[in-house]
Amino acid sequence: MAGDVAAGEKRSAVCAACHGKNGMASIPGYPHLAGQNEAYLVTAIQAYKNKQRTGGMATIMQAQSSGLSDDDIKNLAAFYASLPAGGE
Amino acid sequence: MAGDVAAGEKRSAVCAACHGKNGMASIPGYPHLAGQNEAYLVTAIQAYKNKQRTGGMATIMQAQSSGLSDDDIKNLAAFYASLPAGGE
Repeated sequence: MAGDVAAGEKRSAVCAACHGKNGMASIPGYPHLAGQNEAYLVTAIQAYKNKQRTGGMATIMQAQSSGLSDDDIKNLAAFYASLPAGGE
Repeated sequence: MAGDVAAGEKRSAVCAACHGKNGMASIPGYPHLAGQNEAYLVTAIQAYKNKQRTGGMATIMQAQSSGLSDDDIKNLAAFYASLPAGGE
């Protein structure tokens, strides 16, 4: 089932610190999420939560994703995928 | 030192199969790379090469990145970061 964009937006407050309110990261080492593929975002967040990603800034995302439910992950993915790529 | 966009474009031929010639993935499970942060792309590719990413489709990227030099990685990151987000 597809994620809920509005629920994802609510859950995204803490994400915005690094990934931007509009999904455009304000810091070079962090990925932009705006317009990213929804299915990819789900597998990426799950991989951090499952500690299958350990490189780069992964420890931050391991911690941030640890409290996310499967629905939270789907909703966040739907929200970021819905944002216009490039932050327009 | 920043990567070489033209050299990255040459090296990107095999990447295009999944990530698109313009950096827009044609398959939902794969990330778009167009307009992504250059520094993030470097750390992400390095993490695959170092087998620090094992979730999702990581085995494919572990294999694809295993033959990339540090310069290749920098150049590919510069190339994809230079492409317009959203594939416009």
